[in-house]
Amino acid sequence: MSFPRTWTLLNNRFNFNRQLQFQFTRPTNLKKVILKQQQLRGIKSTNIQKMSTSTTTPEFKREQLESVLKRRFFYAPAFEIYGGVAGLYDYGPPGCALQANVIDAWRKHFVLEEDMLEVDTTMLTPYEVLKTSGHVDKFSDWMCRDLKTGEIFRADHLIEEVLEARLKGDKQARGHAIEEENPDEQDDKKKKRKKKVKEIKAVKLDDATVREYEIILAKIDGFSGADMANIIKTHNITNPATGGPLEPPIEFNLMFETAIGPSGQLKGYLRPETAQGQFLNFNKLLDFNNEKMPFASASIGKSFRNEISPRAGLLRVREFLMAEIEHFVDPEDKSHPGFVTVKDIKLTFLPKEVQQAGSTKVVETTIGEAVKSGMVDNETLGYFIARIFLFLTKIGVDPKRLRFRQHMANEMAHYAQDCWDAELQTSYGWIECVGCADRSAYDLTVHAARTKERLTVRQALPEPKVVEVLECDIEKKKFGPKFRKNAPKVEQWLLSRTECELEKLAKELETKLHITADIPDVGETEIPGDLVKISKKTKTEHVREFTPNVIEPSFGIGRILYSIFEHSFWTRPEDSARAVLSLPPLVAPTKVLLVPLSNNETLQPVLKKVKATLKSRQIPFKVDDSSASIGKRYARNDELGTPFGITIDFESIEDGSVTLRERDSTKQVRGSIDDVVEAILEVTYQGVSWAEGVKNLKPFESSNDE
Amino acid sequence: MSFPRTWTLLNNRFNFNRQLQFQFTRPTNLKKVILKQQQLRGIKSTNIQKMSTSTTTPEFKREQLESVLKRRFFYAPAFEIYGGVAGLYDYGPPGCALQANVIDAWRKHFVLEEDMLEVDTTMLTPYEVLKTSGHVDKFSDWMCRDLKTGEIFRADHLIEEVLEARLKGDKQARGHAIEEENPDEQDDKKKKRKKKVKEIKAVKLDDATVREYEIILAKIDGFSGADMANIIKTHNITNPATGGPLEPPIEFNLMFETAIGPSGQLKGYLRPETAQGQFLNFNKLLDFNNEKMPFASASIGKSFRNEISPRAGLLRVREFLMAEIEHFVDPEDKSHPGFVTVKDIKLTFLPKEVQQAGSTKVVETTIGEAVKSGMVDNETLGYFIARIFLFLTKIGVDPKRLRFRQHMANEMAHYAQDCWDAELQTSYGWIECVGCADRSAYDLTVHAARTKERLTVRQALPEPKVVEVLECDIEKKKFGPKFRKNAPKVEQWLLSRTECELEKLAKELETKLHITADIPDVGETEIPGDLVKISKKTKTEHVREFTPNVIEPSFGIGRILYSIFEHSFWTRPEDSARAVLSLPPLVAPTKVLLVPLSNNETLQPVLKKVKATLKSRQIPFKVDDSSASIGKRYARNDELGTPFGITIDFESIEDGSVTLRERDSTKQVRGSIDDVVEAILEVTYQGVSWAEGVKNLKPFESSNDE
Repeated sequence: MSFPRTWTLLNNRFNFNRQLQFQFTRPTNLKKVILKQQQLRGIKSTNIQKMSTSTTTPEFKREQLESVLKRRFFYAPAFEIYGGVAGLYDYGPPGCALQANVIDAWRKHFVLEEDMLEVDTTMLTPYEVLKTSGHVDKFSDWMCRDLKTGEIFRADHLIEEVLEARLKGDKQARGHAIEEENPDEQDDKKKKRKKKVKEIKAVKLDDATVREYEIILAKIDGFSGADMANIIKTHNITNPATGGPLEPPIEFNLMFETAIGPSGQLKGYLRPETAQGQFLNFNKLLDFNNEKMPFASASIGKSFRNEISPRAGLLRVREFLMAEIEHFVDPEDKSHPGFVTVKDIKLTFLPKEVQQAGSTKVVETTIGEAVKSGMVDNETLGYFIARIFLFLTKIGVDPKRLRFRQHMANEMAHYAQDCWDAELQTSYGWIECVGCADRSAYDLTVHAARTKERLTVRQALPEPKVVEVLECDIEKKKFGPKFRKNAPKVEQWLLSRTECELEKLAKELETKLHITADIPDVGETEIPGDLVKISKKTKTEHVREFTPNVIEPSFGIGRILYSIFEHSFWTRPEDSARAVLSLPPLVAPTKVLLVPLSNNETLQPVLKKVKATLKSRQIPFKVDDSSASIGKRYARNDELGTPFGITIDFESIEDGSVTLRERDSTKQVRGSIDDVVEAILEVTYQGVSWAEGVKNLKPFESSNDE
Repeated sequence: MSFPRTWTLLNNRFNFNRQLQFQFTRPTNLKKVILKQQQLRGIKSTNIQKMSTSTTTPEFKREQLESVLKRRFFYAPAFEIYGGVAGLYDYGPPGCALQANVIDAWRKHFVLEEDMLEVDTTMLTPYEVLKTSGHVDKFSDWMCRDLKTGEIFRADHLIEEVLEARLKGDKQARGHAIEEENPDEQDDKKKKRKKKVKEIKAVKLDDATVREYEIILAKIDGFSGADMANIIKTHNITNPATGGPLEPPIEFNLMFETAIGPSGQLKGYLRPETAQGQFLNFNKLLDFNNEKMPFASASIGKSFRNEISPRAGLLRVREFLMAEIEHFVDPEDKSHPGFVTVKDIKLTFLPKEVQQAGSTKVVETTIGEAVKSGMVDNETLGYFIARIFLFLTKIGVDPKRLRFRQHMANEMAHYAQDCWDAELQTSYGWIECVGCADRSAYDLTVHAARTKERLTVRQALPEPKVVEVLECDIEKKKFGPKFRKNAPKVEQWLLSRTECELEKLAKELETKLHITADIPDVGETEIPGDLVKISKKTKTEHVREFTPNVIEPSFGIGRILYSIFEHSFWTRPEDSARAVLSLPPLVAPTKVLLVPLSNNETLQPVLKKVKATLKSRQIPFKVDDSSASIGKRYARNDELGTPFGITIDFESIEDGSVTLRERDSTKQVRGSIDDVVEAILEVTYQGVSWAEGVKNLKPFESSNDE
């Protein structure tokens, strides 16, 4: 059985499941605000759908999954023998192999299949680059410090935690039950939980305060630092452990800073995303692609975020693997030649209008329809949404627990045109695992402006085009006497105005008969109308020059892996202690477990032959020749997600046949080594079903102890 | 033709080719010192072999290779549009694909083939871990600063540069020619070179000074900071650009520092190697391996070194990809079951005795003989040396330009038992690309001591063993009155002595009748003999506990890639402008170039069929349907290292046949699409030779313009 919902929430208190608790108590007219706000979070997650429908895995126990993942060393806290560091995890052998297989599948699905230009750019990034991209100024959270103890809190999380505890205390005082016992809990977990509960004081609040707290919680993501400082003061929010006063929130940039080179003067950061490295190489990539548009670059690599207080295992970490695509496209033509191949794929959408109307009712339709109706902005974006769906379901995501949620207008970056997140449903709620955004021309434009490097595409026009453009003529000889040493700077300033700026200046000239300009290194300057003339001229253009728009599918690999763990985990109905990870053969860490019936010498030649055959077909396998029973050996590998087992018994010596066992059904078939290995190869790498793959092998009744 | 040797040296002045220049002028009795010293460098490189034998690639032009690598975007300086950052490089599409293929080959060759436990551990590493490993204290170079200009120099490189310039000036003054014109140089290079030469003043030195300089240069790597401070003062070494005075050298740690978490108090570094993450997970890995020994872990990932002034392209960078293996082995049994499979492989060795005798004469022998004679310390080390050889030659290293150089006693870390570097010969000299060291039990021991976590293997003894051990009995009741509040600490100290320490204490008791001990938190304490008794007791042991030794093959992927570029680069004899990168098909970025003879619509169906067939066999390919001539299209892809080309012509429409072209020989054969793709598959992935792979295809006389 599963432990009660409330317990999970208590034990994993961070923003993306707080929603669930409060949804139960909040008045309905707050729903809209809540819905809107919860979409704005760093990790997007609306548990609402989960509440309204029954969960798809009623028997799922996170504790049990975590115990398997730890015991089988899929991953573990890094530096554990040194006490560990929050937000840093190491992948052990099965986790590492799974990750490598997912990356391999990603590379084949996107880079090779779509002819993308993969690059590997550095993680160390100088200050200037991230200043230009906006990360230095905007990539931050608010934190506040307890001056006495030195403890640091993420301001929004702290406010949430304290107000929620007070609301819970109020509930207790009003006589509502908030806790249930869970018989499955381990003792130390129980103790921790008890301690937590003890901290909640059963104090009744007046109704107006309850309401005020609820509004604050619903709006929490929209608050500025000053807003939060005000809340902390007004509502007397202190260090929950000591009651000590807190400093007002200050902004904390989430990038890891370091110094490059020995002088300490070249400030750098560890990149927060792989995207910037791709933008900076735009010209080289365009050249590599023989100037052909559209094209995509791609990059797989680690990125870093110095989270203030990371929790939730692999879902919020300080160092993580990303796979990002930057598809550069003509802003005037976002059609995609491959769209026709995916248009009939049916997907689950949560469009912005639905969310803005306070609902999470999903829309099931084909991507073709979604683009046609305008719900998804353009074909290229739609194409990638479909390709993301195909990739995720190929590597083990349950399509029923995958939805595409559109960003609402107020949660998108100002430059984004449209943005959809692939969200995966887990016990932590709906988790954003892939973002798919149309970033417009923002990044290339800011880097070009900063570096004076042209990051554009120039295309010969099929035929020359006559256009009217504004041009600025200056009375050069009057500039010297008027501006003296500043004359060249004023001239330069005038001559480097864009079309759009010239339009404004022309109007200014018309009305005021002079231009007032703030010129770098010169200051505010008045330029009289007799020195400058702005007029329309006709020009013949042979080339069209434009800054491409960027469509960016961005994958958080760790979050995807964790979701796959949840989606593929179950226990055998006949024995709830026997856990299985039903990872697809394609990504499973090991494909085959070889199990000799005994350590008898006579089995060795067959074992050797099976190993050689598997090696020659490059199928990863492991041998378990321990003395444990066959059933135990398979049970161990069910937890590792190994899809196939080959048993070598005494009959194998006589006729060279072996038994092939399938993990999920535990069904067995028998055949020659070559036929068995061929079946494994087809099912694993060629997308053939188990039934189809083994149709030439004989069913086999097990005499094993399964 | 090739540019004169001296020019290369001048233009690439850093330590690992300085040797070459001086070798010519140095008196022979210095040879021994030089040889010894040059082995101690960070990048090991003895050019002596190159000098004594004729070079293997007389026609090699580094300039031309670099131009191809840049033009084809194998790699480029990172952040180039922002002016670049020294020591940071981005890999473009072909470089990135080559790197991915090399990593894939590495994973198959080592991890899968040898059943290693691959882990992926974090780059961010807390201070304590690297303090324990020794990196905080010892991972550094000496630098000195010009206080006026703020310029920073790596002390040893600066001393070399200045003294070499003076020696060159002396040579000029004595009338020796040191420069030759090179007609191939580009103009800007020429200018730079001229400038450099101008700086050298033709000043004659007296003979004693010449000799003194030469001795300093030979010993440069052995100097301490104080030694170098002294040299700088004595020989008036100043900023070469300004003549300004320099501060004495200070130590500069080469790790990038950062702060983990918001408090700024958890100091961390970017890891300088992947090894530590593997050591820290030792217990989990041993458990994962069902407590079986020996076993190996492996890790592929970026590491970082904040070089003071990085030069030499990919050979000395600040962020680099490593692949490291930690093979944990019983210190009393370093045999290897796989050794028999490699023992007959013949390798080129440069053993320490040869180097210590002042020679670089290599020894050619089998690894079997090398281990048998004791030249290579043990079978496991020998096994890995052979496996490294097989790997490197598989991915494109020229076996004639690969040697295994043994570290001499004084260049090994104090804990290392034996160490061999796989060195690859390039135009920069012999470059250490893979290290293969027996690190003994050092790392596990220091981490265990620091964390109090047992990092050992416990093995049940086949039969219980009776051993004599020293034990310490104390007169507990006398401790209180004697030591008062310190009594527990004194007791604790006595009871936690090792066997070895007890032996010493027993002797002390015997002679002095008391023990004098320096006890933490207590200070020097005298313990009278009547309070303590140390005596031999017999004990029955059922378990043997030991700390494994570690054998560590460690690969610098960037250096290997650069060496492969040099080893596989050549120009067609009929046209020196036509460059070829003969990368092995296995690692080549793209395997096949598809070349439709024209853009005629009628060729499309065949092209589509070829593409589908290649995709179904997962063979990476590119299409070049540009209007360039077929010869030009192939020439472009020769530079990219693409091993095969498929031409689709009008005959293809009639009989479905296509032409297959091989890059190195430009030979062509013809056959059906299926047969041609099958041949490509076999030659690329199954180790089949070209001749064997195409034996069923018809030779084809080209009508192309090659």
